[in-house]
Amino acid sequence: MALIVQKFGGTSVGSIERIQAVAQKVIATCKQGHQVVVVVSAMSGETDRLLALSREISPQPGARELDVLLSTGEQVTIALLSMALFEMGCAAESFTGAQVGILTDSVHSRARIRNIDALRVSQALQDGKVVVVAGFQGIDEKGDITTLGRGGSDTTAVAMAAALEADECRIYTDVDGVYTADPRIVNKAKRIDRIAYEEMLEMASLGSKVLQIRSVEFASKYNISLRVLSTFKDGPGTLITNEDESMEQVLISGIAHNRDEAKLTIRGVPDTPGIASRILGPIAAANIEVDMIIQNIGDDNSTNFTFTVHRNDYCRGLEILQNIAEELGADGVAGDDSIVKISVVGLGMRSHAGIASQMFAVLAEEGINIQMISTSEIKISVVVDEKYLELGVRALHSAFGLDEGD
Amino acid sequence: MALIVQKFGGTSVGSIERIQAVAQKVIATCKQGHQVVVVVSAMSGETDRLLALSREISPQPGARELDVLLSTGEQVTIALLSMALFEMGCAAESFTGAQVGILTDSVHSRARIRNIDALRVSQALQDGKVVVVAGFQGIDEKGDITTLGRGGSDTTAVAMAAALEADECRIYTDVDGVYTADPRIVNKAKRIDRIAYEEMLEMASLGSKVLQIRSVEFASKYNISLRVLSTFKDGPGTLITNEDESMEQVLISGIAHNRDEAKLTIRGVPDTPGIASRILGPIAAANIEVDMIIQNIGDDNSTNFTFTVHRNDYCRGLEILQNIAEELGADGVAGDDSIVKISVVGLGMRSHAGIASQMFAVLAEEGINIQMISTSEIKISVVVDEKYLELGVRALHSAFGLDEGD
Repeated sequence: MALIVQKFGGTSVGSIERIQAVAQKVIATCKQGHQVVVVVSAMSGETDRLLALSREISPQPGARELDVLLSTGEQVTIALLSMALFEMGCAAESFTGAQVGILTDSVHSRARIRNIDALRVSQALQDGKVVVVAGFQGIDEKGDITTLGRGGSDTTAVAMAAALEADECRIYTDVDGVYTADPRIVNKAKRIDRIAYEEMLEMASLGSKVLQIRSVEFASKYNISLRVLSTFKDGPGTLITNEDESMEQVLISGIAHNRDEAKLTIRGVPDTPGIASRILGPIAAANIEVDMIIQNIGDDNSTNFTFTVHRNDYCRGLEILQNIAEELGADGVAGDDSIVKISVVGLGMRSHAGIASQMFAVLAEEGINIQMISTSEIKISVVVDEKYLELGVRALHSAFGLDEGD
Repeated sequence: MALIVQKFGGTSVGSIERIQAVAQKVIATCKQGHQVVVVVSAMSGETDRLLALSREISPQPGARELDVLLSTGEQVTIALLSMALFEMGCAAESFTGAQVGILTDSVHSRARIRNIDALRVSQALQDGKVVVVAGFQGIDEKGDITTLGRGGSDTTAVAMAAALEADECRIYTDVDGVYTADPRIVNKAKRIDRIAYEEMLEMASLGSKVLQIRSVEFASKYNISLRVLSTFKDGPGTLITNEDESMEQVLISGIAHNRDEAKLTIRGVPDTPGIASRILGPIAAANIEVDMIIQNIGDDNSTNFTFTVHRNDYCRGLEILQNIAEELGADGVAGDDSIVKISVVGLGMRSHAGIASQMFAVLAEEGINIQMISTSEIKISVVVDEKYLELGVRALHSAFGLDEGD
């Protein structure tokens, strides 16, 4: 008998029929002899309905009261799912974030979990019940309701799995696993059976938006086996877990891409200490997140400095950079919002030199010019013109032996 | 500075505009220099929406989960009202039943309040905040969410007033007070300024459905001044409080009526000890509530036994009574579901003989035959044919000097 945490998002519980289908999935897991904790989100559309009500009252409602309002969404789902389970003959008990004992800090709308006192949940499991937990919500020391922010239900699921020392945390989504590349781009993309936390983090942050980064970090920290699988289609999904030897033998796990970035360059700035912070300081102050940063050795005591931001921040970033350029007496600024980032990710590359040169050779063969390069221990990213997105991803997928049937 | 509890029902908070109007009423009370605790129900329609969802899953959903589901209704309202108050410049903080510390027993869907630990609410009031409390809900010893059943928000308001030793508990409704008779029947009916708890209880149970009996009992027990007033129309309303000398001087406070009853008679039953319980035992076992009971001294060792039930229970009651009649060898059964009960209520009648005979004389003058009579210390009720309802109520209202302008 194992203890399994199953998490279902808003789409999976978006109607009474779907809630009943989720109940059947839960019961199937029980029938395999497992104890089950289910974590659910608000029914899809419900959060938007509640937000619309609050916006009729205030353009910027107070964060404390917004959490009180939004947390009702999951509370409705846990009650309905527990009823559905009961109706199918399965004893179930629902718990709000407060009832579970999910203690968070007091940062409303993006609280962080501090501790879980899972005593009541453990008791209910011992009593042979399925436990249904409201995702996305907790309670702070004062007893105020908090919410965890985007992807919060994933975080709740992983945190519950950690607190209960569950054997596996299953995240049900609308895809049936993590793929070696986006199947909409590469029709030969394969579902990955197992992937290491680190690789998943690189894949997620690079645009494979299956899981929230935060929940993968959490799972890694507490060593929880995470499985991504489909609500609507049977299958084993993808297991995200600690790396093992077999993983090392796979050179490259996948080709990720991100089409949400834009590139900003400031040319001819004085090559003196502190120049990077004088450029990026005002950008950070404007709450613009920066991804890649590249500074080359320059000529004549001046250098070019390039970084990427989210496309939504492109215009604002360009404006700020123009001011900085004037202040620093730089030669000028340039920008490009029609770029993409393509990355190869794999634990195996740590012990295999030559992945980078192979990647660059593949792109060169296809006539794709590389604008920026950035590397980490287990990934190499390049920025190229967005018109090369499909060509580049497919060429790399094939070259690194990831195509289905290979 | 007084501490005022204000309670607004579902209709009063049925839309964003109405919630904003409630916020203005609350702020007006604050501006008079008072501390305010607001108790609110779910927005009208919301409870039905949630019930409909649950019925799609189960014809009889479990009571524990139904309470989890329904309690979200008031939670939405407290958040929205707090936002509205804040938007109008008034610091407010919302509290669910659990957060207030409304401890109840564990009888889901009709829990009773055991204790209120109002520490957090007192603190918020001391901090100069308006406190917004979810009506209708509490929490049991295990930490499970409970609901108080019909009229539960009134009960929450009175219980909060008791726990906080508030100066007054104001119940906002769609009528502007308690009247000497139903204004739809007696156009000369007057709003009553002050009425004693006992009188209100007799009025309420007799069909003046302004307040739930339970909340009046609660107010009486803890000596809370209750005021009934209109959400939509300004005015002083009716104060329900301890009797005082001025009240004693009013002979009759009002004429109540109830058109929801039906009469059942079993004729010629043996006039022996224990007969009443042999008749009413099976009625009670069928969960039929009995109001008036009359047994006259009979002839020839047999007697007639008559009682009234809710009209909805008339057919079922008649059926049961026919079985009983056979068992007891009674002469037969009879019934009538076109009756009404008319009552005169007043503290003053305790010290004034002759109210009953005056009442009977007034009815006789109008040619109204009295079918049943029942009395308590402060009320006299008669059952008459329902066609005499308007005639009887108006005649009594006038005869006892209650007409407007008298």
